[in-house]
Amino acid sequence: MLMSPRSIAFYGASNNPMKMGTMQLANLLESGYRGEVYPIHPNEERVLGLPAFRSLQDVQKPVDLAQLVLPTKLVPGIMEECGRYGVRRAIIISGGFKETLQGEGRRLEREVKEIAARYGIRFLGPNCVGIQNALCPLNTTTIPEPPFGGSFAIVSQSGAYTSMLNPYLRSQGMRICQTVSVGNEADIDIVDCLDYFADRDEVRAVGLYVETVRRPREFISTARKVAARKPVVAVYVGGNEAGSRSSLSHTGAVSGPDELYDGLFRQAGVMRVEDMDGMIDCLWALSTQPLPAGNRMAVITNSGGPGTSLSYHLEKAGMRVPPFSPGLQARLRELAGAMTTVVNPVDVTFTTNIYLYKDLLEAIFTSGEVDGAFIYGIFGAADMSVNLKKRLPELAPMEGVWDERFLAFLPDLAKVPLEHKKPLLVMSFLGTGSATVRTLVANDLPVFTSATRAVRAMEVLLSYGGLKRRFAAEDEERSRQTASPALR
Amino acid sequence: MLMSPRSIAFYGASNNPMKMGTMQLANLLESGYRGEVYPIHPNEERVLGLPAFRSLQDVQKPVDLAQLVLPTKLVPGIMEECGRYGVRRAIIISGGFKETLQGEGRRLEREVKEIAARYGIRFLGPNCVGIQNALCPLNTTTIPEPPFGGSFAIVSQSGAYTSMLNPYLRSQGMRICQTVSVGNEADIDIVDCLDYFADRDEVRAVGLYVETVRRPREFISTARKVAARKPVVAVYVGGNEAGSRSSLSHTGAVSGPDELYDGLFRQAGVMRVEDMDGMIDCLWALSTQPLPAGNRMAVITNSGGPGTSLSYHLEKAGMRVPPFSPGLQARLRELAGAMTTVVNPVDVTFTTNIYLYKDLLEAIFTSGEVDGAFIYGIFGAADMSVNLKKRLPELAPMEGVWDERFLAFLPDLAKVPLEHKKPLLVMSFLGTGSATVRTLVANDLPVFTSATRAVRAMEVLLSYGGLKRRFAAEDEERSRQTASPALR
Repeated sequence: MLMSPRSIAFYGASNNPMKMGTMQLANLLESGYRGEVYPIHPNEERVLGLPAFRSLQDVQKPVDLAQLVLPTKLVPGIMEECGRYGVRRAIIISGGFKETLQGEGRRLEREVKEIAARYGIRFLGPNCVGIQNALCPLNTTTIPEPPFGGSFAIVSQSGAYTSMLNPYLRSQGMRICQTVSVGNEADIDIVDCLDYFADRDEVRAVGLYVETVRRPREFISTARKVAARKPVVAVYVGGNEAGSRSSLSHTGAVSGPDELYDGLFRQAGVMRVEDMDGMIDCLWALSTQPLPAGNRMAVITNSGGPGTSLSYHLEKAGMRVPPFSPGLQARLRELAGAMTTVVNPVDVTFTTNIYLYKDLLEAIFTSGEVDGAFIYGIFGAADMSVNLKKRLPELAPMEGVWDERFLAFLPDLAKVPLEHKKPLLVMSFLGTGSATVRTLVANDLPVFTSATRAVRAMEVLLSYGGLKRRFAAEDEERSRQTASPALR
Repeated sequence: MLMSPRSIAFYGASNNPMKMGTMQLANLLESGYRGEVYPIHPNEERVLGLPAFRSLQDVQKPVDLAQLVLPTKLVPGIMEECGRYGVRRAIIISGGFKETLQGEGRRLEREVKEIAARYGIRFLGPNCVGIQNALCPLNTTTIPEPPFGGSFAIVSQSGAYTSMLNPYLRSQGMRICQTVSVGNEADIDIVDCLDYFADRDEVRAVGLYVETVRRPREFISTARKVAARKPVVAVYVGGNEAGSRSSLSHTGAVSGPDELYDGLFRQAGVMRVEDMDGMIDCLWALSTQPLPAGNRMAVITNSGGPGTSLSYHLEKAGMRVPPFSPGLQARLRELAGAMTTVVNPVDVTFTTNIYLYKDLLEAIFTSGEVDGAFIYGIFGAADMSVNLKKRLPELAPMEGVWDERFLAFLPDLAKVPLEHKKPLLVMSFLGTGSATVRTLVANDLPVFTSATRAVRAMEVLLSYGGLKRRFAAEDEERSRQTASPALR
């Protein structure tokens, strides 16, 4: 009901565009949300074009969720009103509570919790930015235009690390399924969110931004349950003096040293990553690509530098770039011509044969000699010919044809990893300015701008494969112990 | 003459758009190049709209540079022709030489070298993609539209890691001054390029992509000379089995283990970085920001997550985020209001006061309590109000005014680090889709999409400051030894 409410009462939006509440309501209304929205305002007749209500009492319809963007002191009274009129879910955006580290803020947060407990209201926040949910769809945050789609979710103790990611995700061609900003976690916390994601099949990978884990025992058991079904990755930045001081004044969170959290994550089956950009890269790969069965990787490139970089960083990360067998090399040479380097990396150098990448990839995957692959350098006519068109005007119509053929071929390439159950990651500098890259990422093939980014994403695919095997072994051991105690 | 030729003879371009030579000539002609271009072609009358010549003999004008995009076997004959007609600089794009690891390729490369030596021709390549030079301007590579401007240069043993970076640089709002693809380095090598950059004042930082250093002794002395005047950073990926095998078939380069190159770079005063994206981040910061005098950093943010992330990663990288003195805290609270966290990080939370960042930054820099600063979260009205405008149509004209005022203010913010001689780096997820970010980067303020990227860039600023002090001390020691040998 919190993530997919049928109706929302909105406190704190007006027609003043400089107010956070107004921005959030505008985003909600433009997010494709199909439920009812009731702005509550003490004196406006209409808010952002919708009829406004003096209070919940005037709404006279059932309300699934209330969002509060109000001065701190008003929050307890409104929670009381929500309770009386049967609202059982709330998002409290307002700050000024426990995170101020002042007595008054702490007292107000306790009061809100007591009211919520009395009425059975479950609430998010305070001091959060709300939710984004592609499946509803809705966006209650201050940041417009989430790139909805995709199949990963992010839960964060920082508001910026949910919706503020929108323009970044868009710039990479990534899409997001759900984000939850948990703020001070006065009620709903990361553990509740993990629990929600456990059996939400649309979400295939979960990312956490963590400054503190308030219920370590429950965190371990719940995360462990989720991680057995889908990967969970986490960023933790509370682990030293500067991080922990900053964290305390941010969400009132008491953090612990890195080693402690490393142990916690290990027990929970949560994979720790350095920073948000890396986490998102990993979520992208984890939510779109099959897991590699081992660490042998193929590299197909049209340029030595990226080929060498990928090879170097793969080996540095503990993976292998094995030389291909003579038989496979002969097959690749047949496909690509005598001048191609076919040992692994395969370097096709400059080629306008756009179909070659797929043929090579299929031959390599079919051989069984690798567990995953990287491609660098795939591009279409449009990526290179902007100046040719100016100098050879007769090209323009031809190019449309090339490009259509090329773009139509790319989804077939993107299917190869799924058909062979081996992951494929692409490296390219073209970015989402290129129709080639846009088509690849729209077909769930992650494209990274550097060797280290691509290799780190493969590393986490490999790690998660290992985790799943560890979980399976542990479960087997456990069921063996349970099944035949008399024999031991 | 190679980087800024007054005239170019171009071999290997035709009117066939699928040929690399044709693409390169189209890019040269559209790059803003103001010199003469003479396409040489055996039977075309015109190439890409220019009159074509049968041979150099027909040109009848002085030619500064020849670019060869020809089948391997034709290259020696054309080099001979160039020599006879007085051309003294050449770029040999063609591959099929030493990098094939075949006797015939090696023999042809030797032959080309002999011819060049006989006529005094200095040449780039073979097996390279040419040059890009914002100062001429010209682009002889296969990739269109270099984002010219900026003040860093890249020399690379990989063609992809020069011009293929164009779309990536553009997507980040970065601009490039010069790139040189050195290919097999049969004649001009990285050492020659470093020598060229030593007294090129427009280039303020130099990046190297290295698979091998063919003249280690000269590399050390030349790089040392450059590094005393401007920072040099390098990516090296030949240091393990997979990297070195790939490298050998790429440019025929024999690489060495990581430790060897670490030592070489250390002696040369070259700062090693992991990968190209990180190298470019560092070049961006090094070529635009003052060096920090120490490791004390301020963080100004509007959101706890990025503030905590920056603090954590700064401390992890050996820098400090010192709590501000009571006096400075009082001053900041005066500027930002009672609700602001002012200890360091300074968290202004949600604010529409766009001038606050500059006021806070100036107060902090003036205090002398830090050596550099980070800002996260600066944004303009246009970044947040896309949906507000749809709901409040009367906003649209107002917003134009806000935005103009805001964008006009950003260059002043970008000047603060230069005025105070302390570096400032910005973190933002908005990307170049945002006029705010575009204006900041156009005013030479680097904007990064993650804490780790921003912190790594500051780390290299700090390292280079240390290097400069080391060089100064070594020079003083040397001059002391030279000045007074009798006293020792």
